[in-house]
Order: sequence, then structure tokens, then C-alpha cells
Amino acid sequence: MLKIIAEKINGTRKRVAQAIKDRDAAFIQDLARQQAEVSATTWLDVNAGTAPQREPDDLIWLVETIQAVVDKPLALDSANPAALKAALGAVRHKPLINSISLEPGRLDVYPVVAENKCPAVALAMDEKGIPKTKEERLDVIGRILDKTRPMGIADEDLYFDPLAMTIATGQENALLFLDTVREIKRNFPKVHITCGLSNISFGMPARSFINRVFLALSMEAGMDCAICDPNNQDIQTTILATNLLLAEDRHCLQFTRAFRAGVFGKPV
Amino acid sequence: MLKIIAEKINGTRKRVAQAIKDRDAAFIQDLARQQAEVSATTWLDVNAGTAPQREPDDLIWLVETIQAVVDKPLALDSANPAALKAALGAVRHKPLINSISLEPGRLDVYPVVAENKCPAVALAMDEKGIPKTKEERLDVIGRILDKTRPMGIADEDLYFDPLAMTIATGQENALLFLDTVREIKRNFPKVHITCGLSNISFGMPARSFINRVFLALSMEAGMDCAICDPNNQDIQTTILATNLLLAEDRHCLQFTRAFRAGVFGKPV
Repeated sequence: MLKIIAEKINGTRKRVAQAIKDRDAAFIQDLARQQAEVSATTWLDVNAGTAPQREPDDLIWLVETIQAVVDKPLALDSANPAALKAALGAVRHKPLINSISLEPGRLDVYPVVAENKCPAVALAMDEKGIPKTKEERLDVIGRILDKTRPMGIADEDLYFDPLAMTIATGQENALLFLDTVREIKRNFPKVHITCGLSNISFGMPARSFINRVFLALSMEAGMDCAICDPNNQDIQTTILATNLLLAEDRHCLQFTRAFRAGVFGKPV
Repeated sequence: MLKIIAEKINGTRKRVAQAIKDRDAAFIQDLARQQAEVSATTWLDVNAGTAPQREPDDLIWLVETIQAVVDKPLALDSANPAALKAALGAVRHKPLINSISLEPGRLDVYPVVAENKCPAVALAMDEKGIPKTKEERLDVIGRILDKTRPMGIADEDLYFDPLAMTIATGQENALLFLDTVREIKRNFPKVHITCGLSNISFGMPARSFINRVFLALSMEAGMDCAICDPNNQDIQTTILATNLLLAEDRHCLQFTRAFRAGVFGKPV
């Protein structure tokens, strides 16, 4: 069953950055409520933006503001150990940490993950950026596991992001992603796989149509988590239909319940 | 690139049966034109219904009526050698023959396919009906090839239908289908694979949502032909997005052209 990291509370988005700056709790709480009411939402991503001085305070404010209205676990989206530690003192549920990688700027996040026994997103990239080939991505993932395993971080707690690149700049990019997902599952069967869903269609028109087919294909390949907008109807219906077809919806119950609730709109 | 066998001119549908009976050329020609204007339509299926006495005359009438307004190859949908032979005398382009199988009632179709060197749909079923397992379906396909190869029918001319059963009666049915498609491609790399797309959702609500995810997953697994409604927008957009993601749309040209032509509706 696909888990969703709900993506909307992200300080790199202009409107959210403004709300953080203005301490506009109502705006943030509205995003939190919207996203939390979708049952597939497992974590609400919380990104306070990129100003290192303000990040700890902003992240704590976000965590407290969100937790005042919803009771879902959060995904602390930061590479800043100070901000993460501050937020960890404020969260009600064990959060997902987003993210570790082999980039030099994210190496200090490993001990935070290990000490707090948190699940974490792990990006398949290193100091040279995003690897071009499947083999290089598998190599990076292997090297990340060489760091996490001795620290006591369980494979089951890692959500590897093989990093989908847009189809606009390389027609093999989706196939590379799917192939990498299958290879990760073969080599490291206990880890989870996630991705920022909309990256695949960056720069393209009719993105929603691309994203939903990519979501279905990725789920079939073994991706079990996605960073996306849980309120998007195309995403919701694609998840329901894909779970149904992948035999993950016993007696078609979720699908038919969603149908009766109007998730698909009028019967077609 | 997915080929479509356009399904609408089918005498087992009430309204079409009536049009055949009444020799309502305008109704049939309208269906023919609609379906033929979609570029993915490779063949127009022509099914005259199930009355054996009338079938040859009805099929010839259909062929001539359709060919008066469109110039696409036809798929002669019949198990009746007399009807097929009659229609073969009337077609302008080499038709697809739909279908052969190991059912006793379809064995006489093999020589018609061989003598006319036509491509043909081959159903993975025998005198016992539709096999339950992947292995049994592969066995039936192997036995069909044991008949076609000595007759000089090329593997490349066969469109095997592994027979999707609805998810409503078995939650593993889609996985079984996908698995069978992959196994056919591994064992018999030159044959094509097709299916009647909407069978997967028979008896379910919101069928279009199921059909389009199933189409994308099946194309990724290796299905390269589908019997479906080519005018359905969900099918059109799914084919475009899936071709794009499977690296079968060079420079994203088809996708962006379709976008400009309004196939996706308003930009999303």
C-alpha cells in the first residue's frame, strides 16, 4: 500500500515562505488539515525554507502550528542538524527525516536519524550530484547502507529516492527510474522506495497525465511511497485503481468505498 | 507503439445488431469514421453477430459499407470460415483475422489465416476454456504455435490475447495477466500481445479509471495492441503518456502535438 509524504507545507514555495515569515498560522493549518484528511497521507512534510539562521525557530513554529490542528506524523524536511534537533524536541509522533544522502552537506544528518531511531528518506546522490546510470545509483545506495547499518539504522527504516529526472530532458529517464526501482528491490529487499512524483514531468505540458501514469508504473515496479499532493484527484484515483490491480485491495473494498464516497466523481 | 483494434462495430452490441438488420449504413459509417480518425487505430473490428446463416452476407455488407467511407484495414471478427472467406473477397486491405484458438469451433480458421497470409489474433484458450494459471496459458500458446509454424504462419503475424479476467472475481487477475505477458515476451519474443481492454473491470464501478491504469501497466509489461474504444479520451491520454514514459515518443513530439491539439483538454 502506497504511503504519501504530503508535500504542500514547503518553505521553498513562495506562498508558504510568506506564511512562515508572517506567522500566518491559519494558512499553514489549512494546508495541514486538507492533506491530513486523506487516508493515504502517512506524513506531512514540513520544510521551513533555506535560511539557516531562522530555520530552527521556523521549523518549531511550523511543527507546533500544524500539531495544534492535526495528529499525523510529520516529515522533517531539512539538512540542518540544529533545525532537526530543535524540531525533534517539539514533535508529538516519531517523524520521518527527509533526508540523508552522500552529499557532504547531509552527512551530519545520519547521527540524528540513528540517535532518534527515525525512519528517513535517503537520496541516491553523492558529492558529484545525481548519478547518470542505474549502476552508479545502486553503488551510491550501497555506500549509504555501508554507513547506516553500522549505526544501527534498519534497512526497513530507509525510504530510498532513486531520483526521477524529467522526461523533458531525457526520453529514457522514466525507464531508468523503473529499472532502478526493480534493481533496488532485488538487491535490498527490505528498504522502501519513494520519489518526488512530479519531477518526472518538469517542463512538460499536461503534467498531471504524465504523473499519474508514472505513479502507476512506479507502484508496479515496487515503489511504496511518494512525495506528492495527496489532495489531487488524479493521484487519489490512480492509487486506488493501481492498488486494486496489484491485488492490494482485498475484496475491492477500498475502491468501491471510494467510489461510493464520490472520489471518482460521477460513475463512468 | 500501441496498435488499436477499434471495437465499436460489433454485432453482439444491441444497437449495432439493429443497424445491421436494418441495413442502416449511416449508423455504421458514423462509427467507422469516428474510430478511423484516431491515428492509433490500426484496424476497425467488424463483427456481424452470431447468426451463422446470415453472417457471410452481413459481414460483406459491413465491409463494403465501412470501406465506402474509410480506408483503414479491417479486423474480421468471426470464427466462421465461410463468413471469413466471403469477407476476404471484399476487403481492400489485408485484414487482421480475429481469431484463432484451440477451441474446436475455431480450428477451421487456421487454414484461412495461412492461405491469405493474414495477421491474426490468437486467444490463449482451448477446448476446456480459459486456463487458470500462467503456465497453462503458456502451454496453450505453445500448442497454438505448434500448429501455426508448420503452416507457414509467422510468429510476427500473431497477436496473442492472454485473456484478462475481471478483477471483480479474482484480485490476482491483473497480476496474472501482466505476469503472463512478460512470460510470453520472454518465451516467444516475436509475437505480439493484445487484449480486450475493458474485460479487466467487468462488474466494477468507475471502470474507466481501472482500464486506463491497466492499459499503462500492460503496455509496460509488453502488450503492443489493444481491443478498445479509440475515441475514449482516457485511453488516448493514457497511451500518449505511457508511450512518452516508455521512451517511445521521440523528442516528446506526439505528446506535445496532442497537447496543442487539445487531446488533454485544458492545460493542467
